[in-house]
Amino acid sequence: MNPWEQLAPELLTDLYELTMAASYFRESMFQEATFSLFIRDYPPHRSYFVAAGLEHLLELLRGYRFREDSIDYLRQTGRFSSAFLDYLSTFEFTGSVRALPEGRIFFADEPILEITAPLIEGQLLETLVINVIQLETLLASKAARCVEAARGRGVIDFGLRRTHGIDAGLKAARASYLAGFLGTSNVLAGRLYSLPVFGTMAHSYVTSFPTEMESFNAYAACFPENTVLLIDTYDTLSGARKAVAIARRLAAQGKSLIGVRLDSGDLATLSREVRAILDGAGFPDVRIFASGTLDEYQIEKLLEAGAAIDLFAVGTRMGVSADAPYFDIAYKLVEYGGRPILKLSPGKKTWVGKKQVYRFRDKDRAMVRDELCLVSEPSPGGEPLLEPAMEKGVVVRPVESLETIRARFNADRSALPLPYRAVRAGERYPVQISASLEALEEETVKAVMAKELV
Amino acid sequence: MNPWEQLAPELLTDLYELTMAASYFRESMFQEATFSLFIRDYPPHRSYFVAAGLEHLLELLRGYRFREDSIDYLRQTGRFSSAFLDYLSTFEFTGSVRALPEGRIFFADEPILEITAPLIEGQLLETLVINVIQLETLLASKAARCVEAARGRGVIDFGLRRTHGIDAGLKAARASYLAGFLGTSNVLAGRLYSLPVFGTMAHSYVTSFPTEMESFNAYAACFPENTVLLIDTYDTLSGARKAVAIARRLAAQGKSLIGVRLDSGDLATLSREVRAILDGAGFPDVRIFASGTLDEYQIEKLLEAGAAIDLFAVGTRMGVSADAPYFDIAYKLVEYGGRPILKLSPGKKTWVGKKQVYRFRDKDRAMVRDELCLVSEPSPGGEPLLEPAMEKGVVVRPVESLETIRARFNADRSALPLPYRAVRAGERYPVQISASLEALEEETVKAVMAKELV
Repeated sequence: MNPWEQLAPELLTDLYELTMAASYFRESMFQEATFSLFIRDYPPHRSYFVAAGLEHLLELLRGYRFREDSIDYLRQTGRFSSAFLDYLSTFEFTGSVRALPEGRIFFADEPILEITAPLIEGQLLETLVINVIQLETLLASKAARCVEAARGRGVIDFGLRRTHGIDAGLKAARASYLAGFLGTSNVLAGRLYSLPVFGTMAHSYVTSFPTEMESFNAYAACFPENTVLLIDTYDTLSGARKAVAIARRLAAQGKSLIGVRLDSGDLATLSREVRAILDGAGFPDVRIFASGTLDEYQIEKLLEAGAAIDLFAVGTRMGVSADAPYFDIAYKLVEYGGRPILKLSPGKKTWVGKKQVYRFRDKDRAMVRDELCLVSEPSPGGEPLLEPAMEKGVVVRPVESLETIRARFNADRSALPLPYRAVRAGERYPVQISASLEALEEETVKAVMAKELV
Repeated sequence: MNPWEQLAPELLTDLYELTMAASYFRESMFQEATFSLFIRDYPPHRSYFVAAGLEHLLELLRGYRFREDSIDYLRQTGRFSSAFLDYLSTFEFTGSVRALPEGRIFFADEPILEITAPLIEGQLLETLVINVIQLETLLASKAARCVEAARGRGVIDFGLRRTHGIDAGLKAARASYLAGFLGTSNVLAGRLYSLPVFGTMAHSYVTSFPTEMESFNAYAACFPENTVLLIDTYDTLSGARKAVAIARRLAAQGKSLIGVRLDSGDLATLSREVRAILDGAGFPDVRIFASGTLDEYQIEKLLEAGAAIDLFAVGTRMGVSADAPYFDIAYKLVEYGGRPILKLSPGKKTWVGKKQVYRFRDKDRAMVRDELCLVSEPSPGGEPLLEPAMEKGVVVRPVESLETIRARFNADRSALPLPYRAVRAGERYPVQISASLEALEEETVKAVMAKELV
């Protein structure tokens, strides 16, 4: 299912992709180009990224063409020649895509994908490629941090209400699941991606009844197999004692209260007090859920403070990647007509040429270092990370199940040494540049300077 | 056009809305409820918000129903009774919506909208209402600040590549235009919302030619009426001198170079140097565009440093509202069956009851203060801000043109005293609480405490 089909993905682009394409067309610049998508640097406290979004991108590229009404709109702008519009009306993507598979851990400067295609084709895709890949990679990378901070306790996605729109809400559910979340509150995401869906009650539920106790009774009567009570509407400890009454009633029916949820106040202290109330009443199996502007920093702090929380519901701050709502991600022309390409703009280094990343591990399979190389140089050993996704315009990569992607992430996570996985990571994973790539880069910089800075 | 139609908006919800609804149904809780959507507090440096998103919400509510395949999915979860699923299959929204019109400036604690409907209806809409309204309000509020900082210079939206998905990219273009941007780079948004669309070339364009000069020549030949040259690919001042050559060539054809764009380096200094080069060559009308992680803070700093920039292209940081990527926005049950409702959770105050906001102005129409009142109390004078949008399930508000909304925002902005409009606003606009509302709030708190904290 591609929900964006009627949204004309060919127009989901910055205008300049089309004006540049028009000029390339006029100049007959149809030679092969390679564009590279990569993240320049880490946001604060981060030391790795989690690749995601490839499947959605391939869905969009598979059917990429300019519909008649899109051509009509472009014609009405008065900017484009008829010859160019005729060209667009028969446009197809005929290039190749090499990409990191979803769930793969990667690092700054490493290509997430490279597109090799006639110049116009690679250029036209720029905006769409960045939009699709950055968001899902951003969300998966943030979710991975929450899972890490939770130290084996469960984490679920409650983000839909505050994600940046509907598209982002769906992607947050999928991206967080692939990074190890147990599931989501998002019903449509549950349906689209076959995810476990969680949720029981809000404060509005509790307050709509004459008393909290009546609300708890009504809920347990409706969902005796699946009751989690929100206990902080009026007073958390008093709510916990009422939850004990419900747990007793359910036990009398041979059922169990699944859990209670805390959504406000000092969660570390309250969770311990609630745990004591539940344990004291003989309900050590009733689980404690927590929510309320949680993220990896809060989760770490709560666990360090000895919180008795079994499951974290993470919403807004994961759903918008609040501490790093964007990456410094770029899609750069690195080769055209066999010529290595770069710009000299200060602070914006791009590694030239068509590249591959090789990963080296120790004898226990732990990740040790990566090496960024030119595709044209002999393999230095290690595991090549970019895999063929499209060749000559055809998707060559089978669709993977989300479980496969999740397993890949989990294996990568286990193989990443702990210092890089810390919530406040200081160390940078070593990404070496091959001697050939360094040499080509240097040579290209010199050639460009000689030509342009005279 | 509603691009989300096939996305089943009835499932774009947290699961708990449905489980609560199932329990309300089982308990026959069909009385009228009012839910209020409001922002609890300002992000740092902010002192106002700009309402947006109502039109998209009304589009979704107009056709809100549970499709057969959605019911089938819910049945498969095994959580819901047949009676409840039968009820959902005939579900329609029959309630009323009162809302701030789009483009209206508003403040913390003031309802953006209130929904009055049978309890289940108001509850089921919670997630969708928050998702749609928060995002567009977030983006319009951020864009307004960029316009303010630019002090009359133009601002355009370049955000699509890094917005959180496609939905957000479209909404960023619309929301920023209503807040005074000149247009967007987003072609599909241009088409959907009839916005001016901007854009010429990227660094990839310049670097794909053997030399920068050749790239400039090719562009001007293709778009002689509409050339803006990106001049920082190799060296900005050298680029500016090449732009002069292009300007001369165009002038010889009776055309003009529109502008040059700077995207890196010290923009304040470089823009002045580029201005001097252009002026010195007799081209005072060639405009200088700037881009590159700009936002209101950067724009203010650049203008304070005397930058010679005519037009700011604002991308990522506006598109994700980077300094405040979410609002503390809540959708709360405030009345059920005629009974005022609140919760006591610490730090999360909700004003009870069905409310109206009245705005008071001085003799020059400048905004002086707002008053938050109960709908049931007599008007205190001033201008009521919440307007009917739906009544008995029918949209009663005509669709407004974006130009109308833009004019409303512009009028509100002019009427808002300068201290509140500052990029780093310290003062809070006075929102008074009516005596009746204060009294009802206090009485409700006491009643709830007496009932629940015993």
